Amino acid sequence: MLTYDMDNREGLSRYEYLYQCIKKDILEGRLAADEKLPSKRALAEHLKLAVITVENAYQQLLMEGYLYSQERKGFFVSPMIESVVTKPSHRAESKNSVENIQKDMQKTAIGKGKKHWIADFKNNYVNRNKFPYATWSKLMRRTLSINAPCLLEAVPFRGLRILREAIAAFLYQQRGMEVRPEQIVIGSGIEALYVQLFQMLANDTVYGMEDPGYQKTAKLIAKNGYECNYIPIDEKGLSVEHLKKTDTSVVILAPSHQFPTGLVMPISRRRELQQWASQKKNRYIIEDDYDSEFRYTGKLIPTIFSRDEQERVIYMNSFYKSLSPAIRICYMILPESLMRHYEKSMRCYSCSASTFEQYNLALFISEGYFERHINRMKKYYRNQRNILVEAIRRSPLADISTIYELNAGTHFILCLNTEVSDKEIAKKAKEQGINVSFLSDYCNGTVENREHLLILNYADIEDIDLDVVLQILKEVISQ
Amino acid sequence: MLTYDMDNREGLSRYEYLYQCIKKDILEGRLAADEKLPSKRALAEHLKLAVITVENAYQQLLMEGYLYSQERKGFFVSPMIESVVTKPSHRAESKNSVENIQKDMQKTAIGKGKKHWIADFKNNYVNRNKFPYATWSKLMRRTLSINAPCLLEAVPFRGLRILREAIAAFLYQQRGMEVRPEQIVIGSGIEALYVQLFQMLANDTVYGMEDPGYQKTAKLIAKNGYECNYIPIDEKGLSVEHLKKTDTSVVILAPSHQFPTGLVMPISRRRELQQWASQKKNRYIIEDDYDSEFRYTGKLIPTIFSRDEQERVIYMNSFYKSLSPAIRICYMILPESLMRHYEKSMRCYSCSASTFEQYNLALFISEGYFERHINRMKKYYRNQRNILVEAIRRSPLADISTIYELNAGTHFILCLNTEVSDKEIAKKAKEQGINVSFLSDYCNGTVENREHLLILNYADIEDIDLDVVLQILKEVISQ
Repeated sequence: MLTYDMDNREGLSRYEYLYQCIKKDILEGRLAADEKLPSKRALAEHLKLAVITVENAYQQLLMEGYLYSQERKGFFVSPMIESVVTKPSHRAESKNSVENIQKDMQKTAIGKGKKHWIADFKNNYVNRNKFPYATWSKLMRRTLSINAPCLLEAVPFRGLRILREAIAAFLYQQRGMEVRPEQIVIGSGIEALYVQLFQMLANDTVYGMEDPGYQKTAKLIAKNGYECNYIPIDEKGLSVEHLKKTDTSVVILAPSHQFPTGLVMPISRRRELQQWASQKKNRYIIEDDYDSEFRYTGKLIPTIFSRDEQERVIYMNSFYKSLSPAIRICYMILPESLMRHYEKSMRCYSCSASTFEQYNLALFISEGYFERHINRMKKYYRNQRNILVEAIRRSPLADISTIYELNAGTHFILCLNTEVSDKEIAKKAKEQGINVSFLSDYCNGTVENREHLLILNYADIEDIDLDVVLQILKEVISQ
Repeated sequence: MLTYDMDNREGLSRYEYLYQCIKKDILEGRLAADEKLPSKRALAEHLKLAVITVENAYQQLLMEGYLYSQERKGFFVSPMIESVVTKPSHRAESKNSVENIQKDMQKTAIGKGKKHWIADFKNNYVNRNKFPYATWSKLMRRTLSINAPCLLEAVPFRGLRILREAIAAFLYQQRGMEVRPEQIVIGSGIEALYVQLFQMLANDTVYGMEDPGYQKTAKLIAKNGYECNYIPIDEKGLSVEHLKKTDTSVVILAPSHQFPTGLVMPISRRRELQQWASQKKNRYIIEDDYDSEFRYTGKLIPTIFSRDEQERVIYMNSFYKSLSPAIRICYMILPESLMRHYEKSMRCYSCSASTFEQYNLALFISEGYFERHINRMKKYYRNQRNILVEAIRRSPLADISTIYELNAGTHFILCLNTEVSDKEIAKKAKEQGINVSFLSDYCNGTVENREHLLILNYADIEDIDLDVVLQILKEVISQ
């Protein structure tokens, strides 16, 4: 008869302990295949247990397939395929508590991401002290207190309608874009939206990217198994002349604020591009409007999308930069014909953005907080830019550099008069605790004539002693 | 000289109106390519405007490429490629306000999704009245009040570490799974995690799905351009015998609670499956553990993942069912070797789950609320199941049906003794306002011997008059 020390259970319940013991015996071969187990009553008596305890243990083993039962005959050991070696233990050590989490958050807060840098001009941070916590919290309390069951329903595949309406109204007011909420698809990651686009556009699509440009999208294209051409940019942005010489069918670009040059594509070049798109079926322009909100003089630049009669322009934007990367909400706007195609073919993807945050963001936009936030951040960033520009002008860098500043975004380019290579400067600056990148880092083709163009992000420079940092940079550059 | 009626500006600022007028003249050809514009001073005097107003309008037109400037010569009209027809207006009509949004939410709350049904047994709802609003709100207030800048940083590609730690600790306690937080990848949509898996596993992977099974994943596989075999299930779940006859390399299944049959795969079949996986490089088992938390008797079923010494099992789960589909957080756990591969190759995807919600969920789990919520929901769902079972037993359906109920999940199968086809029953039930589905709806192969198995979801049946509804069903079935 099975005998286990029921007093030595290491905190387990009787049922759980019995279940573990029998399972172990089966797994380690002490109970053979098809061996009959003692009746529940007999085992209970033997181990001085209640019958229900044995019953529960047997039932669990039955459910998991360690035992099988035959009516009126009892319980038998299931034949196993092979014995299983117990895996070495490497359980998660730390148990979370509020204190630990808060400690962790505070610790992170001190300098995560910038931990190793006395200055980080490379990373395109959002200023993290400027998030409108009070307003967001107030709205979130309201959102959660509405307590409507609909908050907990699965969201339509395109995203919540009220958020799509809020975005459409905002784009109309701010950019003069005429968009129906039905044309908008809400997502939680730009990459996931791109994947959907890739799968919706023709299989033999060849993509075209700006060179220099945003490298991550190029990697994403490759990862998804598509070809990608790099199209050089000139002083008007992406060169349509070069584009025409390639087999590109879908071109991805940021016409209102090219990354990293900051160029605005003039209307003539935009038309050229639209003409190119209209010349063949399946040609599309993906307009990445990231960062376009922060323009310090004049009106915002109109989008190509707003002048798209041919239904060839797909518009993409997110709230990562304009609000916070913590709010994982982005969107794409499809021309009507593509939207019909999307509706038919992409239903297997459900909307992945948090429902609560979609509601909250809808309120945030509709009640005017978003516009106010952008205006406040514009002022703040412009001021930060001025501080950096002034610091450069009074620094020893002034004599060996020229500022290319286009009144937009949260970075500008500093053209260095130096013989030292970009790689060398970046390496030496890093050794001194300063993180920098160059335009050449974003180039895929030749870097000829594209060297010595230092990119300076200024969204989050408040804690930096600019005079010291620029002095160090000067020394690195002059070596 | 350009002449515009500056008094009739329809609410626009002088600068904006002047900009619009000149742009219109350029676009409609009244100002020819390379035509020189009047000097700022001259135009200002002519239109009785401040010089700065004209200056601003010219600058904006310059920025957008409608004008070009020549030093000391002035401003000229840029050559356009073709004239652009103005697009018909179809702007978003409705402007959101809190009132509208709340109205919308209330309206939706009344019956969205069930609007047309007096009973919906098809949709796998979560009960929407049971979300722990008070606790979630309390934690969210705390999360937001911590106000740490780190809340606003871009999240690591795997997701927030404290959430991964909370999940690892939870899985250890609840499922005996030994998982390092580094093995966990947080996402906001199961589909997006699958896409990452597809791209990480070999290019020539052929997938295998349970038949009957969850159709959406099969569609996703096809959409991503991969082949998929449907492997029939028998009384022990997916048939490894059939699996071996196919060229499947990666099999996707729900061994702890097969959908829609509810079957638990016994240990012997699990071993057979693991043996199959270990026989060739690149063979993997994707263990979909959706819905496994709701088991009403005994312990939870151990996962295949916990007995995976060969590093062949990928585990997937979400909080959609266990908490709410509004919280778009899901995760996958990779064996160490695959995780190393993931780290190297999948960095182009950033974590798409909301940072605030990741923090909040970490607190919710770590402080024990999640476990309590599951226990509460288990009781609730078990009770709802009993109510439905009782209602069937006292209904006229009792004589012509058998309940297959496996003490888990939020649905069971009712085997109907009828000659009427599943399609016919579903159609007629719909006409009477009752939404139902059959096991045959989830079959890809033959439906022989798989007919007349009605699936009854009971997660959200509180508002249904079961006696009336079951009477109607009986009539539909007996016709």
